[in-house]
Amino acid sequence: MTLADARRVIAAAEKKATEIGQPMNIAVVDEGGNLVSHVRMDGAWIGSINIAINKAFTARAFDISTKDLAKLSQPGGEFFGIHESNHGRIMVFAGGIPLRRNGKVVGAIGVSGGMGAQDQAVAEAGAAAF
Amino acid sequence: MTLADARRVIAAAEKKATEIGQPMNIAVVDEGGNLVSHVRMDGAWIGSINIAINKAFTARAFDISTKDLAKLSQPGGEFFGIHESNHGRIMVFAGGIPLRRNGKVVGAIGVSGGMGAQDQAVAEAGAAAF
Amino acid sequence: MTLADARRVIAAAEKKATEIGQPMNIAVVDEGGNLVSHVRMDGAWIGSINIAINKAFTARAFDISTKDLAKLSQPGGEFFGIHESNHGRIMVFAGGIPLRRNGKVVGAIGVSGGMGAQDQAVAEAGAAAF
Amino acid sequence: MTLADARRVIAAAEKKATEIGQPMNIAVVDEGGNLVSHVRMDGAWIGSINIAINKAFTARAFDISTKDLAKLSQPGGEFFGIHESNHGRIMVFAGGIPLRRNGKVVGAIGVSGGMGAQDQAVAEAGAAAF
Repeated sequence: MTLADARRVIAAAEKKATEIGQPMNIAVVDEGGNLVSHVRMDGAWIGSINIAINKAFTARAFDISTKDLAKLSQPGGEFFGIHESNHGRIMVFAGGIPLRRNGKVVGAIGVSGGMGAQDQAVAEAGAAAF
Repeated sequence: MTLADARRVIAAAEKKATEIGQPMNIAVVDEGGNLVSHVRMDGAWIGSINIAINKAFTARAFDISTKDLAKLSQPGGEFFGIHESNHGRIMVFAGGIPLRRNGKVVGAIGVSGGMGAQDQAVAEAGAAAF
Repeated sequence: MTLADARRVIAAAEKKATEIGQPMNIAVVDEGGNLVSHVRMDGAWIGSINIAINKAFTARAFDISTKDLAKLSQPGGEFFGIHESNHGRIMVFAGGIPLRRNGKVVGAIGVSGGMGAQDQAVAEAGAAAF
Repeated sequence: MTLADARRVIAAAEKKATEIGQPMNIAVVDEGGNLVSHVRMDGAWIGSINIAINKAFTARAFDISTKDLAKLSQPGGEFFGIHESNHGRIMVFAGGIPLRRNGKVVGAIGVSGGMGAQDQAVAEAGAAAF
């Protein structure tokens, strides 16, 4: 995951966010879960800086979209309580998607700034550009 | 709980994880709840490092399997909220098992890297070797 | 401090880092000390992600360059101990510079990835583009 | 950095620790700074579990031995205060060494359990086996 890769992913996500009219925080992490790049679009929530970065971390940490993890981590679900792990870095709602190359997860994108469906749509647009 | 004990437990757990084809993080803690050894099998989730260690801690902290604790700590359950204690170290889903010697808990194993039933099966295989 | 501002500052810093041959983490925060954008150049230290972001925070938090704050916060200095405040976000070595508009601090840049003089030079190049 | 690599490094470090008669905590992290394996030798300090893991993280985070980082991060040094970054994970005393393959840092070893020279000697023995 190069910085150029991350920027291409972020640019596609930003374009989608602009289209739907919702400013977002967008982050990309590498294979080790470490931040490669982050942007906060003008007017996006400051509380979402941390969430976007951590959605990306979460998607890489478990090689799963945070939308799917959300289902497994509800009360009664088999991963309920996982949000308490990893020092508050696990986000269990939509907007984080693993990025694969040749079938292997090599990073992830995390998006936060709107409702779940918006975050997810923007993350998907970013992931599609990888 | 010696390092040799921990390694024997981990080896048995690793063997089981290999059999079911799911790479795992496996950790063993001692009577004090402190880590004796941890291994991350190739390809296992990086988000599960913390979880495996903390499942082992949790199982020793309350002398209970995390699978059983999970039932007690759901919304409405009498331990609901326990996951907030101990600075984020309490894991309330399957994969942590106390290790007993002469009826006394002297440590625990914690496994994370798959679905709940997989984590539990691997932890049981490890515990059986103690 | 718009995202466009932050990107212009980061681009100038990146150019300088490339010139001196040292990959860097570069971050820009706004008037509230909140992250606007971060990039990790290929090969830059992963431990410097946190440091770059926090140098920027520190420079805005006290409206001072972290190079100057470094002098005041040595043992015996009048701000010695300040690094313990703000939950570990205060960095007391060179590489963070406030960004001013019409004499007012409206954000800051933070750079980390090399020796102090390198971080400072790259931060200055970024600040000059604001 | 495979688990087999980490075990080979740990075995060499353990052998050295046994020779000098000082039980140690020994940890290996991968390229992303994430733990691959940890062992606590019988009788080693429990306070050193965290330190060994974090020395390894630090050595990878900045691609430098913690012995060298120690010199740069003393009062008056250009990295003084770095120990406050990265949420308490930066250790600035001897015992952490980057592990290189073809000139590139792909992980690190961290050792803690004795005096600085002992930790360093054991870490060097481990690194030599990589």
